[in-house]
Amino acid sequence: MPGSRPFVSLATDFGAAYTGICAGVVHSIAPAATVLVLSDEITPYAVVEGAMLLRQALPYVPVGVHVGIVDPGVGTRRRPLAVETGRGDVLVGPDNGLLVPAAEALGGVVRAHVLENPAYRLPGVSASFHGRDIFSPAAAHIATGVDMAGFGVPALPLPLDVPAPAVAPGELTAPILYADRFGSLILNAGPDDLAAAFGPLGPGTPLEMSWPGGAGRVTFEETFGGVAPGEPLVWVDSSGRLGLAVNQGSAADRFGLREPGTEVRGPGTVTFRLAD
Amino acid sequence: MPGSRPFVSLATDFGAAYTGICAGVVHSIAPAATVLVLSDEITPYAVVEGAMLLRQALPYVPVGVHVGIVDPGVGTRRRPLAVETGRGDVLVGPDNGLLVPAAEALGGVVRAHVLENPAYRLPGVSASFHGRDIFSPAAAHIATGVDMAGFGVPALPLPLDVPAPAVAPGELTAPILYADRFGSLILNAGPDDLAAAFGPLGPGTPLEMSWPGGAGRVTFEETFGGVAPGEPLVWVDSSGRLGLAVNQGSAADRFGLREPGTEVRGPGTVTFRLAD
Amino acid sequence: MPGSRPFVSLATDFGAAYTGICAGVVHSIAPAATVLVLSDEITPYAVVEGAMLLRQALPYVPVGVHVGIVDPGVGTRRRPLAVETGRGDVLVGPDNGLLVPAAEALGGVVRAHVLENPAYRLPGVSASFHGRDIFSPAAAHIATGVDMAGFGVPALPLPLDVPAPAVAPGELTAPILYADRFGSLILNAGPDDLAAAFGPLGPGTPLEMSWPGGAGRVTFEETFGGVAPGEPLVWVDSSGRLGLAVNQGSAADRFGLREPGTEVRGPGTVTFRLAD
Repeated sequence: MPGSRPFVSLATDFGAAYTGICAGVVHSIAPAATVLVLSDEITPYAVVEGAMLLRQALPYVPVGVHVGIVDPGVGTRRRPLAVETGRGDVLVGPDNGLLVPAAEALGGVVRAHVLENPAYRLPGVSASFHGRDIFSPAAAHIATGVDMAGFGVPALPLPLDVPAPAVAPGELTAPILYADRFGSLILNAGPDDLAAAFGPLGPGTPLEMSWPGGAGRVTFEETFGGVAPGEPLVWVDSSGRLGLAVNQGSAADRFGLREPGTEVRGPGTVTFRLAD
Repeated sequence: MPGSRPFVSLATDFGAAYTGICAGVVHSIAPAATVLVLSDEITPYAVVEGAMLLRQALPYVPVGVHVGIVDPGVGTRRRPLAVETGRGDVLVGPDNGLLVPAAEALGGVVRAHVLENPAYRLPGVSASFHGRDIFSPAAAHIATGVDMAGFGVPALPLPLDVPAPAVAPGELTAPILYADRFGSLILNAGPDDLAAAFGPLGPGTPLEMSWPGGAGRVTFEETFGGVAPGEPLVWVDSSGRLGLAVNQGSAADRFGLREPGTEVRGPGTVTFRLAD
Repeated sequence: MPGSRPFVSLATDFGAAYTGICAGVVHSIAPAATVLVLSDEITPYAVVEGAMLLRQALPYVPVGVHVGIVDPGVGTRRRPLAVETGRGDVLVGPDNGLLVPAAEALGGVVRAHVLENPAYRLPGVSASFHGRDIFSPAAAHIATGVDMAGFGVPALPLPLDVPAPAVAPGELTAPILYADRFGSLILNAGPDDLAAAFGPLGPGTPLEMSWPGGAGRVTFEETFGGVAPGEPLVWVDSSGRLGLAVNQGSAADRFGLREPGTEVRGPGTVTFRLAD
């Protein structure tokens, strides 16, 4: 992957400024690299949201070195990792499951190493900004051609901890993974789960849905335009997952399933049944 | 416009992550391109705000391929377009008026084609993410030198639907187009409309203003510094439009003319008269 | 610093769109430059926050031309400046103290000139968007090799107006500089001030803290992980300053020390004493 114009991407929950500092570190060490900020606005501490973003995004990004940082354990014993994928990428970030779904979508984990060689860290590593001091320098050195085996001992990345959907005849209960910018709620269930619960569903099929604290009615649709503006729908999102949305509105606000701007937490499931 | 270093810009209402995916698609197809994210934070579904941004911004951006996506009609029959401008740019986006004011500011529409050739789309176009699957690949292919005539049939872009100002002797009623980051309200009226209603106005001229649900007093100023911090003013913004602002504050919050973070909707006009 | 691939960074309180316009101006004038948006989300009008960001970030960014714009005085008599640093950078922005702490961190101010030569401005400078019309063109021209002496008369940059910490035996009062994205409050005091007030402090040392309107208890920690999620801590942040944080939460929200999304204003100090 090191080449005349290596590609480095960054996805963080840091906001613009701290992500910009990380990009500056990459530019300083690997001045020939193209650097793309894939996202600087993952919800703070939302590891699952970040993992889903990386899995959804990286297949559309050039083969390269991809830094992912959502790291509530910064400063603790969690390990910093580089993970090589079957496609030829190197993913760099904390060993908290964040990188694993993306690695699986990119051909699987080929090998992984702990980032412990001080030669590839900034001098004077801080306790709270490993993005700047460990992850970005590692990514930049890998982009310039350093083999990841030189960073530290081999490691087996920890899996991401995500609840599974529950499928029964006539009923599907799906965990809410995150709310996107439009307030659409992305669920950990796919069209296969829907078909397993209900058989084939045509557009316009009405469903009853319930969650801890509320209940409502929604239709399954192929596109947002299948319902009027302001009306809710269930659809298959662009990453192949079920989503709960409101056409030209926000499902998260409509159904009170999160505080605006915060991670979806708590009970965090929605149950669907066929409506009468 | 294809050259050794083509220029591609992106302006969307997607937020960082989905815009980053679009940038990744462009980098994948056109690795030599310089890619600028012009904005990833247009208010969701706010076509007029996006159109005004593109018109204001693109004259200051290098000639290139410019993707604009605010697309409440994604998944419906609205057409995806490429639009060539008199300056030599190609604008790429939905046929909902979004691109037209910018095209007019860049020398007018020279030709436009529908983006329907599957050879220039990603395989397996989704129902909800045409930015990734149709617009970004089209822009990247055009940046590498593909002629837009190869994308599909010629088209005449639909105009943007914007209400006009109402000018009468001693009275100007101006539609609110959008609120900018500082909460300043940008109006669809210019200094010519102000002069037509009131004759020449010097800095410090007091005006009465009213809108559905409120009324107030404001002065016309050449700069924010013409009034004390916290005081309102009407001025000509950097794109040549009238704006209603509060020095070091937010006019949108002060006058209750929108919910924070949302599009300006509803009645959406402000009427000015000379104060006694 | 002009070279085959000059480096230009931008840090503003403009949001994405207006910062994107500035980047477009730089790309238009200096097409060979690498352009990094270091931040487009500094709190509007928050000069101190912007100055602290630039001071913290620029040492990690390649030597280059760095534009900083937080400019409540735009359109008034405040001067636009270019400031050369000991490291070889040129900082470009308003003469309101914003650039000075960063210049000091980059080897000090070598020379500064007022940006008044119309040849290096856009034609028709607006009253409210000097970022587009003055600062970005200046930065781009400097990046292409224009010497800053050609811009205007020499100047001595005005200092940044920041309150100092108050240290007494057993008591430290520290001004709040700003709240970061995570709601952590960064204080204008360092570990030296803490040691001067209390002597050497080990991790876990309990402190009492008070501010106008409230009081609480906190422990001094080396890392966020030193306290349970939801618990507050004082730590030394990655720029060497004391910070008040909540592990996986927001100190600003917890202690009511600001409105969300706004600058920290008003009394703005926190006083610490050793707890019993």
